[in-house]
Amino acid sequence: MSKRKGRRKGFTPRSEDFSAWYNEVVQQAELADYSPVRGSMVIRPWGYGIWENMQRALDDMFKATGHQNAYFPLLIPMSFIEREKEHVAGFKPELAVVTHAGGKKLEEPYVVRPTSETIIYAMYAKWVQSYRDLPILLNQWCNVMRWELRTRLFLRTAEFLWQEGHTAHASADEAEAEARTILAVYRTFMEDWIAMPPVTGLKSESERFAGAVRSYACEALMQDGRALQAGTSHMLGQNFARQFGLTFQSEEGREEYAWNTSWGVSTRLVGGMVMTHGDDGGVVVPPRLAPTQVMVVPIARNDDQQAMLVEKAAAIVAELEQRGVRAAMDDRMHLSPGARFFDWERKGLPVRVEIGPRDVDRGEVVVVPRVTAESGPRKEALPEGQAVAEMADRLERLQTRLCETARARREADTHRGEVSSVDELGELLDGGVGFVYSGWSGDPSIEARVKDATRATIRVIPSEEFRSATPPTRCVGGGPAQMEVVWARAY
Amino acid sequence: MSKRKGRRKGFTPRSEDFSAWYNEVVQQAELADYSPVRGSMVIRPWGYGIWENMQRALDDMFKATGHQNAYFPLLIPMSFIEREKEHVAGFKPELAVVTHAGGKKLEEPYVVRPTSETIIYAMYAKWVQSYRDLPILLNQWCNVMRWELRTRLFLRTAEFLWQEGHTAHASADEAEAEARTILAVYRTFMEDWIAMPPVTGLKSESERFAGAVRSYACEALMQDGRALQAGTSHMLGQNFARQFGLTFQSEEGREEYAWNTSWGVSTRLVGGMVMTHGDDGGVVVPPRLAPTQVMVVPIARNDDQQAMLVEKAAAIVAELEQRGVRAAMDDRMHLSPGARFFDWERKGLPVRVEIGPRDVDRGEVVVVPRVTAESGPRKEALPEGQAVAEMADRLERLQTRLCETARARREADTHRGEVSSVDELGELLDGGVGFVYSGWSGDPSIEARVKDATRATIRVIPSEEFRSATPPTRCVGGGPAQMEVVWARAY
Repeated sequence: MSKRKGRRKGFTPRSEDFSAWYNEVVQQAELADYSPVRGSMVIRPWGYGIWENMQRALDDMFKATGHQNAYFPLLIPMSFIEREKEHVAGFKPELAVVTHAGGKKLEEPYVVRPTSETIIYAMYAKWVQSYRDLPILLNQWCNVMRWELRTRLFLRTAEFLWQEGHTAHASADEAEAEARTILAVYRTFMEDWIAMPPVTGLKSESERFAGAVRSYACEALMQDGRALQAGTSHMLGQNFARQFGLTFQSEEGREEYAWNTSWGVSTRLVGGMVMTHGDDGGVVVPPRLAPTQVMVVPIARNDDQQAMLVEKAAAIVAELEQRGVRAAMDDRMHLSPGARFFDWERKGLPVRVEIGPRDVDRGEVVVVPRVTAESGPRKEALPEGQAVAEMADRLERLQTRLCETARARREADTHRGEVSSVDELGELLDGGVGFVYSGWSGDPSIEARVKDATRATIRVIPSEEFRSATPPTRCVGGGPAQMEVVWARAY
Repeated sequence: MSKRKGRRKGFTPRSEDFSAWYNEVVQQAELADYSPVRGSMVIRPWGYGIWENMQRALDDMFKATGHQNAYFPLLIPMSFIEREKEHVAGFKPELAVVTHAGGKKLEEPYVVRPTSETIIYAMYAKWVQSYRDLPILLNQWCNVMRWELRTRLFLRTAEFLWQEGHTAHASADEAEAEARTILAVYRTFMEDWIAMPPVTGLKSESERFAGAVRSYACEALMQDGRALQAGTSHMLGQNFARQFGLTFQSEEGREEYAWNTSWGVSTRLVGGMVMTHGDDGGVVVPPRLAPTQVMVVPIARNDDQQAMLVEKAAAIVAELEQRGVRAAMDDRMHLSPGARFFDWERKGLPVRVEIGPRDVDRGEVVVVPRVTAESGPRKEALPEGQAVAEMADRLERLQTRLCETARARREADTHRGEVSSVDELGELLDGGVGFVYSGWSGDPSIEARVKDATRATIRVIPSEEFRSATPPTRCVGGGPAQMEVVWARAY
């Protein structure tokens, strides 16, 4: 039983050591576990169920915006990955390489895809002849591999699951519009489903995707004040099209290179969810993402009561499911009620419904949401019919409140206004500010200086809707500002 | 345009060269394409959409039988794969090996998973302490790699997509029941969704999964008379549990090894669908699997008509979608109606709805199912309201008819009764019989002799429901029969 030790022990408080708290809750909530493969994790059913709900929601949004799914090979010939010079420079240090297969040394080694631009645009080159064949709007759900030195469950692992969209267009404008459409899809998804409202914008040159012309990103602010790059959408220009001969005959009969975009989000989002909503009691899963939203827990004092209570609980589960609520029963009667409560609290299941013999006599159930409302009691005894009828609304209110709370925290942890020096920027960050808005001249050497001095980087040049009403006029490194930027220390 | 050449050219007839027909239709229906990676294919949107529908249906069935999804690493330490002796002997020749990563040679190489028993049971060993932790009923949807020498799109590729279920139980009986439950799930799925009714049963020892105690399989009969192993479910006994220390404390307090099962189906099923239903005009997709079930094709003679017809077609699409039918419009007006019809026929889209100006005047549409009914006309002009209202039923009737046709063909291509010699068995197969039922003594040397002489193997020792009413009494190799078996030449 040694592995179970500490189950009832509290977690390291977030205020004491956020990183330790994160590692503990992710494992003890059974979201994921370490594996015997260096840097690779196992995603356990509770964590995978959350990812499945993310997938389904995003997939619907991709399809609603005209995209289809496809699947391209895991392995990429080494010569492909080397063709786009910036791209290979960015990814080469992290590649895993297959040198032998079928009992023989391969003539040309393959890399396990770190991302699939090269192999996908090579295929598009085969499929596209004329502007009639464009746009191509494809996405794939798959695993990728980047051999990272320091790994953390969900946030940075050698292998991760993601979706990567790859599109080809007949004009730069259309590709640019696509990259922005997806940025908006990601933002909406993160707000509506993860309740994790990000700031969006353009990456500075130093943080751009290897091979892109422009990279857009969603940056979310975690509870420890660090930013998480939660999704990126890249306008690739004609960089890859040139390397892979992806040309088309235009409406005017000219041979032209196509314009590409690529975009992705990954299982990292599960880590973002944990670091946005979790508390010292464990994980908090937003209702829309929870594999099970309501757990009905029968509480019997003796065997005689047990059959009746389990039957009653099953009936409540069935009623909830009829109303579209994902409900289940925890009938592990060999565990104490407290042990069962603790298990689901740690896992962040949104609402627990307790039912004991006296509740049945009264026609009541006890409803206990995982996250306490700002005011009012946490536990409520409600008539069974009312509890069931109101459950879907209750879950939606919980969902909304989580997003409001996260947005309020983000704003509270954000500094706007003039920042007159790199030292001041550092002091703001050390003082607990997460996002610092400042002016910037656009000079990369200032960006490098800030990074050296404060470990902060430009997360984004914010999209219009995130810019300050009164934009800063001075660059943080001195001199006039050319634009407003958002700084943070990042995961 | 050279790559488009032959689009309107017919396919090689099945009767002339089934294999050539298969390769042509799979590519020209845009189900899949060859990639620059040896033996790996690209699954294109039409093919992937079929796979997605298979996935969703199967996933629902797995969840309804108590399974959950999870995700385990792509890479497996070489030492893990080598631990179960039969297992490594079976898979070693087909392994792809990662020897370098992050710019360095690895101390221990990793293999790209050919199947995940080893890594998964190593994790289960970490998670399981007592019988209370059992059963574990997990599944994962993922890619796997087996370096095959001769590859064919969907049927045999170096990389393929599949699901692999892995369970652990406290008793042999429970594991055996699980393996059979899944066999039944697979059979139902193949009948109800792919309209590909298989014969089920037990594998003989020589065809057993490497490391299993017993392997069950679904064997479907293709139009060319060859069998396709379409799904397998293995009772693994305690073989892997012993190698990975997967023990539990029983209810009686004893330390025991757990009992495992594993089971999988793959993108091979898409190939099975093609070879079950396709005709000389291309692919035929069963309605339940079709990414789009109904394609509405507006047919305009001039630009004036075009806007009106496209609007009308869009309205019909909306009405069909309201009724739960997956419908779309093909408004590629630069293509002739014939070219558009041909495109969807080749792809096997279940029902086309044509709409021209005269149809609109009459309030009619022309309904054209991809597969002709046994009797009656193929094209029908129907009042629009009727066509829309009846569409869901029409699709279900098409689905049912496809399964009936496939079952009737399987039975017509099956020989039952005494087969008195290996020569007679060979003659039956050469004469066009697909499944030959015969008696067998159980002697593996006879199995080997049949294989040498006829290229046929024992596909299964049939499950009870597939056994002959009067079982054969003589073994095909001479002497008395111990059991009935099903022989076929297989993919």
